[in-house]
Parts: sequence; structure tokens; C-alpha cells
Amino acid sequence: MAIITLTTDFGDSDHYVACMRGVVLQISPDALIVDVTHRIRRHDVVHAAFVLRQAFEHFPRGTIHVAVVDPGVGTTRRLLATLYAGQVVLAPDNGVVSLIHRDYALSDIRSIENERLFRREVSATFHGRDILAPVAAYLASGVPLSSVGPAIDQLEILNLPRALMLPDGGLEGQVLFTDSFGNLVTNISQVELERSGAKLGVVQVYVGPLRVGPIRRTYAEVEPGGILALIGSTGAVEIAINQGSAAERLRAAPGTSVIVR
Amino acid sequence: MAIITLTTDFGDSDHYVACMRGVVLQISPDALIVDVTHRIRRHDVVHAAFVLRQAFEHFPRGTIHVAVVDPGVGTTRRLLATLYAGQVVLAPDNGVVSLIHRDYALSDIRSIENERLFRREVSATFHGRDILAPVAAYLASGVPLSSVGPAIDQLEILNLPRALMLPDGGLEGQVLFTDSFGNLVTNISQVELERSGAKLGVVQVYVGPLRVGPIRRTYAEVEPGGILALIGSTGAVEIAINQGSAAERLRAAPGTSVIVR
Amino acid sequence: MAIITLTTDFGDSDHYVACMRGVVLQISPDALIVDVTHRIRRHDVVHAAFVLRQAFEHFPRGTIHVAVVDPGVGTTRRLLATLYAGQVVLAPDNGVVSLIHRDYALSDIRSIENERLFRREVSATFHGRDILAPVAAYLASGVPLSSVGPAIDQLEILNLPRALMLPDGGLEGQVLFTDSFGNLVTNISQVELERSGAKLGVVQVYVGPLRVGPIRRTYAEVEPGGILALIGSTGAVEIAINQGSAAERLRAAPGTSVIVR
Repeated sequence: MAIITLTTDFGDSDHYVACMRGVVLQISPDALIVDVTHRIRRHDVVHAAFVLRQAFEHFPRGTIHVAVVDPGVGTTRRLLATLYAGQVVLAPDNGVVSLIHRDYALSDIRSIENERLFRREVSATFHGRDILAPVAAYLASGVPLSSVGPAIDQLEILNLPRALMLPDGGLEGQVLFTDSFGNLVTNISQVELERSGAKLGVVQVYVGPLRVGPIRRTYAEVEPGGILALIGSTGAVEIAINQGSAAERLRAAPGTSVIVR
Repeated sequence: MAIITLTTDFGDSDHYVACMRGVVLQISPDALIVDVTHRIRRHDVVHAAFVLRQAFEHFPRGTIHVAVVDPGVGTTRRLLATLYAGQVVLAPDNGVVSLIHRDYALSDIRSIENERLFRREVSATFHGRDILAPVAAYLASGVPLSSVGPAIDQLEILNLPRALMLPDGGLEGQVLFTDSFGNLVTNISQVELERSGAKLGVVQVYVGPLRVGPIRRTYAEVEPGGILALIGSTGAVEIAINQGSAAERLRAAPGTSVIVR
Repeated sequence: MAIITLTTDFGDSDHYVACMRGVVLQISPDALIVDVTHRIRRHDVVHAAFVLRQAFEHFPRGTIHVAVVDPGVGTTRRLLATLYAGQVVLAPDNGVVSLIHRDYALSDIRSIENERLFRREVSATFHGRDILAPVAAYLASGVPLSSVGPAIDQLEILNLPRALMLPDGGLEGQVLFTDSFGNLVTNISQVELERSGAKLGVVQVYVGPLRVGPIRRTYAEVEPGGILALIGSTGAVEIAINQGSAAERLRAAPGTSVIVR
């Protein structure tokens, strides 16, 4: 029983996701459909890339991830099937795999072109239902990845900012993602921090001009309402308010500068 | 393993949907429960009828759809089991099947009355949990449809407006549904349009006094922020803003007049 | 195939819930994951206790409930596995089981300490993913409850108010929960009411100074927009507006006084 995950910006209130589920189950009744989220911010490929990367890490080999954030639907943008670490990602060629690509080895890229794996009628506006869902279902049923279309050797990768080493030994990065608690997840990973020679208990974290303090272990090390930095569950530096929203309090968003020194 | 879909206006934050899931799984541990949505607008039977119709089209024969939008719960309104194209719909007799009824052949209608298939205690306010969920589970377990109650020959059908042929050969319809992207889905289908002799590449679409332009193939044919008409994924004329909300921009809602000529 | 339910305050838009699902499926591919809700009000243990209690009632023996509302994550608060009526609840020791505890017999309490059942790396901020999800998955796979950690004999129980008998024979209670329809669910159960000698058709219900009227059977006994009291689907007195929100109209919330006399 193969797992098919769904990550979309369709929201939870329309029929769109249910249509995809129905199409999958018509072809592959034993597939296990698992929602990542349908509340990616509309047309926000960076948001989708982050969420998909986090989910990807926790699924077993053989999982098929379908990601539909697709402002270019119906244009000449391609649909891709990529294989990383034994897991397949089906998505438009718009960079949604960028963070998986950064962290995992790519084994195969296919351009999805085999119309025999598509829904009989393909609309110009809903390729999630008409192409990606049925292709995922056929893969879940044992159709080999090579049958979805020709191997290609290029794909769109987002030019996401990386943390930079500062002359004095610190790291300068930025907020990459704000979660719905208002936590600010940065692009400064614990691994990079340790590689830079920083000592977690000694460094200070700054958001713009604001000194947040040292890197702590958990939220409850400060009083409710207090601000803190810590290594979050993604393995990167996070800025948080204990039981509050750092995004609101600091008016921070993806792109806000964060320095650890 | 039978599929049971759930369509409700219960929202995602209470225990109500989970109670229905638990009741189903107690009776039919192998049933596959698939959410359509729980965010039908409260008590909005037309909204439910549209979403259910779209989902219905993509599920296999044997699927059991449970729809609970039920402002009349506890009154004398009946609960019905209807059979269309090999799929069962369990719902209050309030018109929620109207759009399925318009497009598929009805094979059977039963009034749900067999109390042996109900939860032991039946509340006056939650028939989704106490009647529809267990009846769905028994049907999924192989109980025949005829056992849920007597065959009847009438059911409530909503008087939804249909597109009208204009003297000059165009079609006048209206917005039937606005999705959460703000796209306006009309009751003017591609089939009707072609039957009327309209040529898709030639006609103009009007929303009230506003000329939207010709029928295009996909969103990206206009610039981001531009307005357009196209045949949407439901097979009907849609008005959309590329990467924006036509419902907001045009202050349009179900009932707004749309003309294609 | 064991059922694992999830009740969290993580919301529906981040990767957190999907990470838990992935961790479960890696360990126990046949587990059936069922969402209760991920929209518990942030850090609101009373809300979680109510929703979990309602869901609990409808699931079969053998179900494993995971509840993650955990403002104290990473502190010394314990994580517990409790057994009530053949169902396991995995949760922080913060009172989230209080209403199950009130209504069901407790058979076993374990402090979750067996690190061999944890994710290899345990973060300080996401024990739902790193401890509770894998422990649930191992239990679903047949690992005995006794293996999760030592038996203990105390757990945190919230001091929730109970309905009080009034000198004149009525009952004074309060709103315990407001659902997303705006219905006010009180802590006055039908059982207590009958035990107090109150006659359902005769008593009057008051919210603060407002006389709501007698206890009715269903919403539709008053006109749309009218206020009423009834025995709701949880078996307790509820105050509702037919097709409206009593919470908004009465500005009521958990804690608001309700008297039946």
C-alpha cells in the first residue's frame, strides 16, 4: 500500500482536494492518501517548498508526494516527477522541490508527458486532478517511474538566500518561514552554526537591531510573553515568543534579517 | 473496502466530525473515510449541493456519500438514501442532491427509518452521528440499501436557475458558486454553450455591465491581476482574476448575472 | 489495524501534523490515523479536554488517542500513557484527560520514559513528533503498554467546576465549551438534572439574568434567530440560537453562569 501525500494551496472549503482524492482512489483503491496541508499561501512556492521539505523528511521510501501550487497552470511550464532518496515528488517545474533538492541526492527527473496516465479529459486549469493525481495513483499501483515521460536533466530551483559567514565569525541569515504560531524559522541551521565555530550557549541572536539573547533549549526557559531564540524542530535557529507570536510582535516575515554572533 | 465520504458544515475545530468517524469505524473498521469538506457555509444547502456534485463525479461506483447540512435536524424532515450511478448519497431531504439529480439517473430513493441501523441513543440534534454515520457504516459492511427503509418516490429538489437562451443567440446565466480563490463558477456549461451555437473563441462574456472579454483557455493568458473568463474545471464558464479574487473585485456572489453572447 | 487519533493545537497550515503522520507510518504502516481536530485553541487545555472527551466516547476499544496541547514542552512535565475503558491516551501530564478521567475508570498510568520507542533525535520543542507519535505507532504495532515506562499513581487533573444543587432544587452550572456554531455547552448534564428531580418540560433556563425558557428538544422549535435551551448531543444542557450564534449574541464564554430551576 503506497502512501500518496498532498500539499496544495486549494484551501479546505472547496471540492478540489476531494476530486483529487476520488481520482486517486478510482485508479489505486489501496493507496493511502495523507494530507500535508491544503493551506499553503496562495501561489507561494517558497512556502510550499519549506513545508514539503519538512514533511518529506519524515516519510518512508516509496512515498509519492504530490505538490500543487501552480500559478502557471495551463502554460508551457512542465510537470515533473523527481526522485530523491527513494521518494517521488510530482509537481510543476516551478521550484517547489528546491529545499528537498538542497538536502537530498537527486536520482531521476522525468517530464510528465505520458497521456495514457492522465485523466481522460484534461482541463486547462486543474492539472492536480487531471494529471498529477492519476499519475500518482498509477505509480502507487506499481507503474515504473520511467513510464511517466522522458528523463530530463534540468529543473527550476529557487534562488533562496543562504546564511553567510560574517568576517568576525558570526552568521547572517534571514527568516525563511513563519509558522502559524508566529515562530520565525531562519535559514541558519544548527549544523552551519557549529561548523562556523559558534558556541550555542555563548552566541547572541539579533533580529534586525533587536538583541533577542542566547540560543535556548525550549520555549519555557522564558516567561510566557517573553522572546527567545532556540534551535527549533527543523534543526534551524528559530525566534519565538513563549505562548505568543514573534511574527506579530516583531513584524517579521520571510526575508527579515537575523544575525547570530 | 467501501469508501464513505463526508460533506458537512461542522467546521474543523470541534469534535463533531471525529464523533462521526468513530461511529463509522466501530461498525465498519475497514471503511475508508474520505473528507470532501467540513466547511460548507453554515446551513447553505446550495453550496453543499454544488460541492457534493463536483466530488461525486470523481468517485467510484459503490461509494457512499454522507452530506450533513441540516438546519431542520429534529423536525419532521426525512433522511434519505438515494442511489445515482451506483453511488449512494445519505442526506436530509432538503435538496442537497439537487445537482447530482440534475446530471445523473436516479435508481432508488429510500426513507431512512430502520432504527436497528441507528446508534443506540439518537439525539434530537446530531443525526449525522446518530443516524447517517451508522447507516453509512452498515451499508459499507454489505447491508443492502433496501434495508434502510421503504422506497419512496419523491424528494426535495432545489429550484436552481438554469441558463436561458437569449433571442439573439447568446446565453444568460448566473453565478452558482464562488470558490475560495474567488473564482465565479456560473451555471452556463460548455455543453449548453456549444449547443447554442456560440463559438468559444468569438463570444464575449459580461458580468452585469462589465465586459470581461472572450472565453480563454487558462488563467495565465492575462497578466497577474487581469480579469478573464474561461471554461473551468467543472466544465462551466468561470470568471476569474489571474492570481486574484474575482468575487472581491467584482463584488459578485451566487445570483450575479452573467451573459455570454 | 489499530486506530491512532490526533488532537492538537497545531492548526492546519504548517507541516507539523504531517510530520507526526509520517513518523507513525514509518513505524506502523497499517495504523489508521484519524484526525480529531488540529484547531484546539492554542495552549487551551480545557478546550482540548472537552473535545477529546467527546471523541473518546465514540471510538472502539484498542484506540490510541494522541493529544498534543503542550505549552510546557521541554520542561520537566511528564508525558503520560493512560488507559481508560480499553483505550489509551498519550498526552502531556497537564490535565488534558480530566474529562475522560471524570467519566471513565482508569486502569493504568505510565510515565513515558522508554527512549527506545522515541525518534532517534528528540528535539526540545516537538515531543508530539519525537515521542508521542512513535510511541503511539509502536503501541499500534503490538508493543505492550507496560513497555512505555514505569507505572505511576498520580496525574494532573484540572479543577473544573461542577454543577451545584441550589437550595430550592434547581442546578447552577456554567458554560464549559462553546462550539464553532456558537452553541454554549454547559456542565449541567441531563443525568444530574434528572437526579435533582427537575422535570425537563417544566424547568426554566437562565444565562446570567436572561431567561432563555424551557428545555426544548431541538433547534427548530423556535424561529430562526430565536434563542433556546436543549439537551445537546453531548447529553448536557446547551444554549443555542436557531441558525445563529449564542456565544456572540449573549457574549457568553466558558465560565458564564447558567441556572436551571
